[in-house]
Amino acid sequence: MDNNKIGEAAIRTLVEGWAKSVRNRNLSGILANHSPDIVMFDVPPPLQSKGIEAYERTWALFYSWSDDPVVFDICEMNITAGEDVAFATALMRCAPTEQNGKRAELDFRLTLGLRKIADQWTITHEHHSIPAI
Amino acid sequence: MDNNKIGEAAIRTLVEGWAKSVRNRNLSGILANHSPDIVMFDVPPPLQSKGIEAYERTWALFYSWSDDPVVFDICEMNITAGEDVAFATALMRCAPTEQNGKRAELDFRLTLGLRKIADQWTITHEHHSIPAI
Repeated sequence: MDNNKIGEAAIRTLVEGWAKSVRNRNLSGILANHSPDIVMFDVPPPLQSKGIEAYERTWALFYSWSDDPVVFDICEMNITAGEDVAFATALMRCAPTEQNGKRAELDFRLTLGLRKIADQWTITHEHHSIPAI
Repeated sequence: MDNNKIGEAAIRTLVEGWAKSVRNRNLSGILANHSPDIVMFDVPPPLQSKGIEAYERTWALFYSWSDDPVVFDICEMNITAGEDVAFATALMRCAPTEQNGKRAELDFRLTLGLRKIADQWTITHEHHSIPAI
């Protein structure tokens, strides 16, 4: 297996672990492989959130809509990895509770940017979105 | 200048040229450095557009809203480049014409994924979005 395939496999494991941490409301797991300087483009406003503390706050907002069991599923993922830079794209599904108390299925798109820092793949960018109506 | 800095500079020139092609309604310029297999997550539906022909159709939709002069400005851009994989994030602005005939300023987020193929940086992924209301 060449180095890029090894990188892709490591990143797949990392992203699947991150999504599992989201489902488990495990905040330290969510943050475990993120850069202090992460730039987040999230589904709800603001336009961007810079830095790990602002990133952490986006999860408090997410959990304010997400009842148990939390849905945060990777439907389809593609990873492009070089020696020390990579990105991943995915189609995702969550299930926010709406104002009427019903849970909706919400499909969204995810792009991740990663750097290998001190031999560890680290997420430096996340972009979550839904199409605008 | 190390190779990654050279890559970042080449990608900055490529993305600035692409945005200029958008402003100039120059479709061959828009498509010049894109992979046949590009995966596009656009501002309007659908959830994703796969392949260069579907990508090309997203621009017909964009121009159906965009009167002259076309606004498609890079407000802030950051590029992370390795030897042969890179990604770029940007805050962008366009100015669609609304149903009342007025032009709105619309700030949006852009993430690009790139691979170096045959010594040429090539866009294999685009993610454009606005925050959901």
